Amino acid sequence: MAKFLTNKDDNYAQWYNDLVIKADLAENSVVRGCMVIKPYGYAIWEKIQAELDKLFKATGHVNAYFPLFIPKSFFSKEAAHVEGFAKECAVVTHYRLKLSEKGEIVVDETAKLDEELIVRPTSETIIWNSYKNWIQSYRDLPILINQWANVVRWEMRTRLFLRTTEFLWQEGHTAHATREEAEEETRKMINVYASFAENFMAIPVIKGYKSENERFAGALDTYAIEALMQDGKALQAGTSHFLGQNFAKAFDVQFTDKNGKLDYVWATSWGVSTRLMGALIMAHADNNGLIIPPKLAPLQVVIVPIYKGDGQLEGMAKAAMKIKEGLEARGITVKFDDRDTHKPGFKFAEYELKGVPVRIAIGPRDLENNTIEVARRDTLSKETIPADSVFEHIPKLLTDIQNNILSKAIQFKKENTYHVDNWKDFISRLDDTGGFIMAHWDGTAETEAKIKEETKATIRCIPFDSPEEAGKCIYSGKPSKRRVLFARSY
Amino acid sequence: MAKFLTNKDDNYAQWYNDLVIKADLAENSVVRGCMVIKPYGYAIWEKIQAELDKLFKATGHVNAYFPLFIPKSFFSKEAAHVEGFAKECAVVTHYRLKLSEKGEIVVDETAKLDEELIVRPTSETIIWNSYKNWIQSYRDLPILINQWANVVRWEMRTRLFLRTTEFLWQEGHTAHATREEAEEETRKMINVYASFAENFMAIPVIKGYKSENERFAGALDTYAIEALMQDGKALQAGTSHFLGQNFAKAFDVQFTDKNGKLDYVWATSWGVSTRLMGALIMAHADNNGLIIPPKLAPLQVVIVPIYKGDGQLEGMAKAAMKIKEGLEARGITVKFDDRDTHKPGFKFAEYELKGVPVRIAIGPRDLENNTIEVARRDTLSKETIPADSVFEHIPKLLTDIQNNILSKAIQFKKENTYHVDNWKDFISRLDDTGGFIMAHWDGTAETEAKIKEETKATIRCIPFDSPEEAGKCIYSGKPSKRRVLFARSY
Repeated sequence: MAKFLTNKDDNYAQWYNDLVIKADLAENSVVRGCMVIKPYGYAIWEKIQAELDKLFKATGHVNAYFPLFIPKSFFSKEAAHVEGFAKECAVVTHYRLKLSEKGEIVVDETAKLDEELIVRPTSETIIWNSYKNWIQSYRDLPILINQWANVVRWEMRTRLFLRTTEFLWQEGHTAHATREEAEEETRKMINVYASFAENFMAIPVIKGYKSENERFAGALDTYAIEALMQDGKALQAGTSHFLGQNFAKAFDVQFTDKNGKLDYVWATSWGVSTRLMGALIMAHADNNGLIIPPKLAPLQVVIVPIYKGDGQLEGMAKAAMKIKEGLEARGITVKFDDRDTHKPGFKFAEYELKGVPVRIAIGPRDLENNTIEVARRDTLSKETIPADSVFEHIPKLLTDIQNNILSKAIQFKKENTYHVDNWKDFISRLDDTGGFIMAHWDGTAETEAKIKEETKATIRCIPFDSPEEAGKCIYSGKPSKRRVLFARSY
Repeated sequence: MAKFLTNKDDNYAQWYNDLVIKADLAENSVVRGCMVIKPYGYAIWEKIQAELDKLFKATGHVNAYFPLFIPKSFFSKEAAHVEGFAKECAVVTHYRLKLSEKGEIVVDETAKLDEELIVRPTSETIIWNSYKNWIQSYRDLPILINQWANVVRWEMRTRLFLRTTEFLWQEGHTAHATREEAEEETRKMINVYASFAENFMAIPVIKGYKSENERFAGALDTYAIEALMQDGKALQAGTSHFLGQNFAKAFDVQFTDKNGKLDYVWATSWGVSTRLMGALIMAHADNNGLIIPPKLAPLQVVIVPIYKGDGQLEGMAKAAMKIKEGLEARGITVKFDDRDTHKPGFKFAEYELKGVPVRIAIGPRDLENNTIEVARRDTLSKETIPADSVFEHIPKLLTDIQNNILSKAIQFKKENTYHVDNWKDFISRLDDTGGFIMAHWDGTAETEAKIKEETKATIRCIPFDSPEEAGKCIYSGKPSKRRVLFARSY
C-alpha cells in the first residue's frame, strides 16, 4: 500500500493528500469543501479531544452548547468582527421544502425567514448575547466555558483537515471582572495549547503575539502557537484572543463590581480545530506513511503472526493473546491481526502507513525460542526480545518513541530556524529551504503587507521570548527593537 | 430557590419548564427553537454520551463524521424518506454576505448556490452516498459506524430538550451483507438503548415494533423504547431502524458476495438525542427539583459546612477535605461548598433543585462527635453516621440510590400500565390517569388514525413480549391477536 504514496520530496502537497486518503483518515465529500472524517482519522481526533478536554477541565473550564445558527444582524454589532466574519458564510434563508407540481423537491418560497440565519463561523456573538442574561454582578464572574462544535467558513480552495468549509473545533469563551484576569486567561490558554502540542502531539511550537494585521477580528490581542512542518512551512496550530470589552460593549454586558460600580465585562476566546490533524500528519510522517505519537495513537501496538497453516497459528494466537491482555491491563491499546486474507508483508506496510507506533511479529522460530520481534515505527528499527520481557519493554518503548518523535521535531525546528539580516538572504532563504525566519521588522502594517505581497511570507508571530535587540528592518531598513518570526504558511 | 418551582400536580408542563430553567440545564436562545445547553445540563449530557459511547464501542462500533450539509437532490433519492424529511428543513441558499451601499449587512445575491444545501435532519442520504465508494465486496462489510452530531428539524412548537429545532444526537449507520445480520444489528441496538435506559437513567422501558404509520421514513421496520413520564404520558426514548436495501438501492450501493454474486447492501440506523435529558427529568424529578441517578450525576456528593465564624470553618474544612479526597480516590465526584455568601439552608435547597444524590452536612456538634449528617436526594431522608464509616457508607449509598430510583420508576410504570378492553374505558383511562394502555387493535392504519384523531393517543409500539391473545379491537371491534401499547405522548 505504502508504495502508492507520492514521494514526499517530489511533491509534498500530493504526498500529504495521498497519505490522508490512503491511511483512511478523511476524504472529500460531494458537498464542496466539506470532508468526511473516516473512523481512523476520527479516532485520532477523539484522542486529541479527550486530552484537551482534560486540560481544559483541569484549568477550571466547563463545557456547554450554543446554537448553530446566528441571526445575521449579530454580525454587525461588533465593528471589527463584521469585517472578519460577515463574509464567506453559509446563509439559511428558508425553512421548508416542498414538492413542485412537476413532482420535484423545491424550496418553499412562502417559508422565507424574516431575518436570515448564518451558520456559525465562530460563536462570540451568539454566546455574548447569552452572557448578557447570565451576568449581573461580579459574583457571576468568571464564566469559563468551552464548546465542542462544528463551524462553517465558506472556503474557495480547500485541503483535507487544513482548510475545509465545515470543520470541527473547540471554542473557549470566558468572561472576567478585570482586564488583568482576562489577559491572564488568554495567556494561560495559549500555554495549555503549547503544552498539549509538545507533550501529546510531539510538536514544539513558538508562542507569540500576532501582528495587528493577523489578529482575530474583534480582538485587542491574539496569541498563537506556530508549528513548523517538514516542508519548511509554518502552521498556526492554536490561537487565544484577548477581546477586551469589545463584545461586552457590542452586546451591552455590564456587571456591578465589588464597589457597586457598573463596568463592561472583559472577554477572551480561544480555539483549536481539526486542523491539528494536518499538523500531526505533516510534522512527523514519512514516505512510508503516518508516524503517530503513542499518546495520540488509537492503536498503539499491533501483533502480526507469521505462520504457515492453522497448526502454527494456534500457538501464536495463544502467545499473542497473552501479550495483548497483559498490555491492555497496562492501559495500552493492542490489536492482534490474524486475518488470513493478507500476508504479513502487506500487514506490515499497512500498519506503517497508519503510523501504529509498535509492531510485534511472532514467527515459528519465535515460538520455539520464546521470543518476539519488536519493530518501532518512528525509526523503522527492529529487535528480537525475550517474550517474557514484553510487559516491561513495551511501555518503556512507547515512552521512548513519544520522546524520540518530539526530539526529532525539536531538532528539525532548530535546524530550520534562521536568523536573517538582509532582504537578499531573506528571499533566498525562503526559496531555498523555507523554515522559521527570525528577522527584524519596522513594526508597520505597510511593510508587513509589502513583504507578504513580494514573498508570500507573513509574520507568524512576535515570539514571547524574542529578546530586545537593536536592528534594522530587513525590508525598510528602519530601526527595529526585536526580531519577529516570518515564514510561508498553511 | 426550590419554592419558585410550579407545583408538579398543578401544572406539569410549567413545572418542567421551570425546572429546566432554574436548575440551570438549558434555556431558549434568540434563535427560534434553538436552545442553549448550559454547563450543568451539558455535564449530564456528557455523562450520557460517555456511557453510550462505551456501549457502542463494546458492541464493535466506531465513530466518524459526515458533512452538516446535504444536497437537496439527495432527499428525493429514497421515495419514503423524501416524504418524511424533505419538509421542515433549514435551507442554505447563499454563501456570502456583503455590506450594502447603506452600510448594512445583506446577503450577496451573486453568491447563490446552484443547488441548495439542507442542514442535515438525519444523515442516511449523505452517509450512504459515501458508503457507495467504500463497499465493493463482502470483505468491506459490515460497516459499523456511529456519529455524534447536531441536526436540525424546523419545529413550529418547541420545548426545551423535548422538541427543539437544533438538537444533539448520535446516529448509528451500519451496512451488512445479509438481511439477517442487519436485523440482528437493529435488535441489538434497541437492546443497548433499553439497557442504558434501565441501568444508567434508571428508567424502565417497553421495547417494541412501531406500527407502519409511525415507522422511520425509509425503514422496513422501526423498533423503539418507550418510557412513561410521571404525568402519564409516554416518551419515545430511542429508535433503531431496519432499513432493508432501500438506501443501498437509492444510492446504488452493491457488493460482491462470497459466491461472486452482486447484491444490494443491507442497512440499519439508530439514534438517541438530547431528548433523553427530558426523559431523565420527567421520569424522576419532584417538587423540590431534579433527582439524578448517581451514575449520570455530574456531581454525586456535596459537602456543606454549618458554621459560625471562620474559627469553626477551619476544622470543618479539614474534615471535609479528607472526605472529599477519600471519596474522589474511589471514583466519586465531590464538591465542598464553603461559600460564605450563602447560608446552609439556601445551599441545601440549591443542591436539591439540582438533584445532587447525596448531601453531607458537618456542623459543630458533628465535629465534636466525629459524625456527619448524610441526606439522600431521592427520599429526602437524613441520618447521622460516624465520620469514620464514610468511605464504606457513601459508595453503598450511591448504589442504593441508583437502585431505589429505578425501583420507584418500575413501580410507577407497573401501577400505571392498564389492560383496557373497551372504548369507554379507553377514553376514561386516558382522561383520568393517562399511563400505558395495553389494548387490542385491528392492525389497520385507518383505525390507528381514527383513535389518534379522537383521543390524541397513539400506538407507541407493539411490544416484543406482548403474548398472543385473541381479542377485539377497542375501536372497530374487529378481531385482534395481541395487545399493543397505547398512550398519549411527548
